[in-house]
This record gives sequence, C-alpha cells and structure tokens, in this order.
Amino acid sequence: MKFSILFGGKSFEHEISIVSAIALKKLLANTDIFIFLDDNHEFYLIKKENMKSVFFSSKSYLKEPKIYPKKNGFFTRTLFGEKQIQIPTIINLIHGGDGEDGAIASLLDFYEIPYIGPRKEACILSYDKELTKMLANHRGVNVLDYQVVFQDSKIEVENFPVIIKPARLGSSLGISIVKNKEELEYSLDKAFEYDKKVIIESFIPNIKEYNLAGFFANKELHFSFVEEPKKDEFLDFNKKYLDFSRTTNTQQADITTEVENMLKDNFSKIYTNLFEGAVIRCDFFIHNNTCYLNEINPIPGSLANYLFADFPTTLNKISTSLPKPNNIKATYKFLNEIKVAKGK
Amino acid sequence: MKFSILFGGKSFEHEISIVSAIALKKLLANTDIFIFLDDNHEFYLIKKENMKSVFFSSKSYLKEPKIYPKKNGFFTRTLFGEKQIQIPTIINLIHGGDGEDGAIASLLDFYEIPYIGPRKEACILSYDKELTKMLANHRGVNVLDYQVVFQDSKIEVENFPVIIKPARLGSSLGISIVKNKEELEYSLDKAFEYDKKVIIESFIPNIKEYNLAGFFANKELHFSFVEEPKKDEFLDFNKKYLDFSRTTNTQQADITTEVENMLKDNFSKIYTNLFEGAVIRCDFFIHNNTCYLNEINPIPGSLANYLFADFPTTLNKISTSLPKPNNIKATYKFLNEIKVAKGK
Repeated sequence: MKFSILFGGKSFEHEISIVSAIALKKLLANTDIFIFLDDNHEFYLIKKENMKSVFFSSKSYLKEPKIYPKKNGFFTRTLFGEKQIQIPTIINLIHGGDGEDGAIASLLDFYEIPYIGPRKEACILSYDKELTKMLANHRGVNVLDYQVVFQDSKIEVENFPVIIKPARLGSSLGISIVKNKEELEYSLDKAFEYDKKVIIESFIPNIKEYNLAGFFANKELHFSFVEEPKKDEFLDFNKKYLDFSRTTNTQQADITTEVENMLKDNFSKIYTNLFEGAVIRCDFFIHNNTCYLNEINPIPGSLANYLFADFPTTLNKISTSLPKPNNIKATYKFLNEIKVAKGK
Repeated sequence: MKFSILFGGKSFEHEISIVSAIALKKLLANTDIFIFLDDNHEFYLIKKENMKSVFFSSKSYLKEPKIYPKKNGFFTRTLFGEKQIQIPTIINLIHGGDGEDGAIASLLDFYEIPYIGPRKEACILSYDKELTKMLANHRGVNVLDYQVVFQDSKIEVENFPVIIKPARLGSSLGISIVKNKEELEYSLDKAFEYDKKVIIESFIPNIKEYNLAGFFANKELHFSFVEEPKKDEFLDFNKKYLDFSRTTNTQQADITTEVENMLKDNFSKIYTNLFEGAVIRCDFFIHNNTCYLNEINPIPGSLANYLFADFPTTLNKISTSLPKPNNIKATYKFLNEIKVAKGK
C-alpha cells in the first residue's frame, strides 16, 4: 500500500518532524506524496527528491505548490479554479503542536480525509502531561507523584531529585532533572519558556524504563517488541536526533513474561476506546514490581517503526481499521414539529 | 460591538442550534453576519432576514453564497479568484457535535479566526460525560455515582432509579429515567442509538438543581444569576425548544449566600485554566448540603443570555479577553546543528 506523509507544523517540534519524515521516506519505498505544513500554517506538496533537511531549513519549500484541505481531500489552485491532488491515506507525522494537540486530527476529520494517527480526543488527553496523569488515574494505571505549577504558583518541593517538564511538549525540550532547591528556579524558568503550565515529578534514579508500541486493527490490539531504552545519553541533543531518525530494528528487552504482560495490560488500559486509528508508544517505568506510565507518545518519532518486526505490514493493517466519521443527517423533524405546534 | 453567529453543524443538535441562533439574532440588534454550517460540512453566509427556521428546514439556504475558512478569515469564490468576507468576532453557537466536540474550535484556531467559545481542550473534556466526570474528580468537584457502559458490556444495576444518557450529546436526546430492571433494556437501546458509549447515573428524585453561568475577562471570573430550573417539564419536547429560544431574563434563585458561594467555588474549579474564551453554564445539584456537578454546557442554549443582567456587555467583555494562539516560528537551529555535527 501507498501512504502520504504529513509533517512539519507550527510547533517547537517542527524540525524533529522533518527528521522523522525523512526516516519514514527511507522505510516506505513506494511512498511519494509528502505534505509539509510550515510554521505559517500553509501546506506544501514536496517532491520525494526534495525530502532533505536543508530543503526546509533553507526555505526552498516556499517555491513548491501550495495545497489546502477541503471536503474529501487536498486541492491546489489552477488558473481558473482548482484541482484535487490524489493522495493515499495520510500518516500524521507532525510531532508536538498541531499534530499531537488535536488540531490536524480535527481538520482531517472535518474534511473527511482518511489518516493514520490519534483522533482529537486522544490527542487532547495525551498532549498535556497533566491530562495524561488524569487519564491514567481514571483508567487504573499508576503514575509517579507529581504536581502541576504555573508561573504565579507558590512552589514547594520537599523531596529531591525531581524532573521538571513543560506540560505540553512532546520531546525533551525544556526538561531538567533537579537535585536540590538551588537548581529549582533556573530549571523552572527554562520550562516556563515553553509552556505556562509545568509538571514537577518525582525522579527515581536508575529506574527501569521500558517502551512498548501498539495499535488496534482487525478487532484486536497488536503489540511491538518491548525496548529498554539506553539512558546514558538522556536529554542529549544527538540522542533526540537519533531517536527520531531511527530505522533499524530493535531487540526485545530482557524481561520476564510477567513484566511483559504487565506492560501490555497497562498499554491496553490506556489505548482502548481512545487511540484507535493510531500507532502509539507508551513509555513505562517498573519500580518495586509495579508498573508506572511515564508518558504516551501518540505520534512517536518515526512512528516507532524500529519496534515492529514488519513495519510496512503494521501500516497496512491499521489503515484497514481506521475509525469512521459519523454520518449524521439533519432531518428537520424537530423544527417541523415546532412549526406545527406554533400553528396550533 | 458587532459579532458573527456561527450555527448549525453536523450533529443531532443541528436544529436546536438554529433555534438558538434565531434567539441571539433577536437579542443582538446590530449583528448581521450569520454563518450556517450544514450537515454536509459546507458553510453558507445567511442574510439576517432569512434567519427563520423554515429557511433551513426547506433547504432554501442552499441558494445562499458558500464560504470557506482559511488563514485569518472566511472567503468566497469569485469568477477568477476569491475574496475575503469581513466578519467581526465569531460566536460559536453550534451545539453538540462540531461545535462542542472541538472540531470548530480547532478549525478556527488553526486559521487564526477570533471566536467566543470553548477551546479544543475544553470541548473534549466537557463534550464526553465520562471525561467531564474525570475532570470534576481531578479538580475536586463532586459528581453523583455513575458507570460507563458499551453495547457489549455486561450491565449490572443494583440501585434504582437511574438516569441513562448517551455519553456524547449536549441536549436531552436519548435520555431516560429508569425506575426498575424491566425498563432498563429499552432505555439503554434508546441511548445506544445516539452513542456507543452510555452513562448510567444515580438519579435522586426531587434533588435541588441550580444553573450558574460565567466567563473570564479582564483577569477575573464574572458570574451570572443562579437559576433554579423548572423541572416538571423535564425531557419534554417543548421544554427543549423553550430552553434554546429563551431571551427573557431570569430571577436569582432563592438561595443562601453559603449555597451561592459553594456554586461559584465549584464553577471556578471547573472553569479556570480550561474554559477561558467561553461563556459556559454549569448545572449543579445540591444534596445534603453538598454540591455535585451535573453537567457542563460549554455552549449553552442561546448562550445562557437570560442568566445575565446585561448580555451585550457580557459579550463585549469576553471578546476583549480571548486566548491568543501561540506564535511559534521555526528557527531551523536544530537542523543546522545536525548538519554541522554530521559534517564533522
């Protein structure tokens, strides 16, 4: 099957999305439709041979044809009108704002354009880390202790270390580990540069971390390998690049069946009746034999391809099980009854 | 100030939104821009003199000019291009799907078109009654006991009466009060006609109910009168019509200052850091001196105008305090650093 890759977005993760799209281009040989959303909220149709980072950083994309979404697809202007661009199912690969915050999901659903990616409800509940904690709690999934703070909050932290995160950001931007009171203010300032809402969370050094991806298709959940991510380069600049450009398969982490089942069970609690239509990655901690949700990546870097034994088949499977938009028609029964009632 | 009224939508509340828009036309004398979203997701510009229910039920609107949203406004086609329609701040008056589920909020925010109404996060958390309960619980606001069921759920109800509600519907459609086991199946079937997710909630006969509306402007919350709604016509067809077409002011309910403060305190817990930009109405129960949230109306019928002493001033106030969209620009700093790193 063929897919279209939608990437870019008006967000702090704009550039990471370009890296991610270039990675998927390498993996999906017959994909040749690339749709770039720039930081001015304009869509451009990008030729496959131009899918290189310098094409975007040099702003060369501005010379490419502008396209725009409307009912049932993307269109471009012609001399006296417009014509539709034929595009196969879209993969929403816009990380962070626009892509993960529900804007693009809403737009595509409104115009009835099929896509692989989280729907707007799933986006809202996973984009904001406070809402993710609320969701986890509601669905019986553990999270580490945390507090939510704003710039004018009276902030009191008793137990260090903590990890400070902007509430609404998908990557590692603005995140710091804080070991003592003295470091707190600087780290908070850094986080508040990205969001007016910040999460302060318990940080347990050397906690075991496991990543698991999955998706729903043909009436069941399909899981990826479980990976134990390398942590020594945590928060490092190159690490982020490597994460979003990964195309080589990983190996299953060395864990017991019991731990694997615990991870799958928690993934299922988060995913079911919310993330259908999307390939997501959940990052978990295991501590004292208990599983904690760290975060949900509703559009993981390069779609977590490296966690699946056969990634193209994964995409084919999910693309046949996408949620259908509602088909409500106005009957005007109510207004007609009112008219009759008023006529009495 | 002048406003534009956006109404209609692809939803079960399509017709109620028309009733609501006609009510606001009467109240806002100098409003002359009406934008109708039909059940095919097309926008039409409706003349003020055509704002009558029969104009829509007879499908006469189809002859009016089609318009469409893009960056910074609504546009219409001309012979060789397009022209922008000058529209003042929009009031999102699409009840139910599209309006209250986050679709329209996302669309308007994406295209940077100013509007009064809940933002997408607020929509998602108030449109689905399960998520509303989850939010209330997270923010320390009580709700009555409930369970969430799906069509294939094993459903067990021990204590009657209960009230059955489709999870994602803004008006009284599909709702029934169930007194015993025998009535349960029929009522559930009725609710499942509207949504695959249904809420079964405790029903306390003759419980005290109070409605309170409010909005945030000029750095503080502004509250409406508190109303004790008449309940004898509950779920009745005419009641719904009367509710959405109300334009006459109500009187403050006969309550103590203590109860009033309890309602305002709970309203504030729900509204703050979520509903900014919107005039919402919260419906509360008071039972054994405890306040329970019944539901949030993020776009109440005719915008709950009848609860405000001076409704036009309310709209003027809120329109000067609308949330601003982010203004993130791509710097390509990251991609340039990668290029340098790779060149090493």
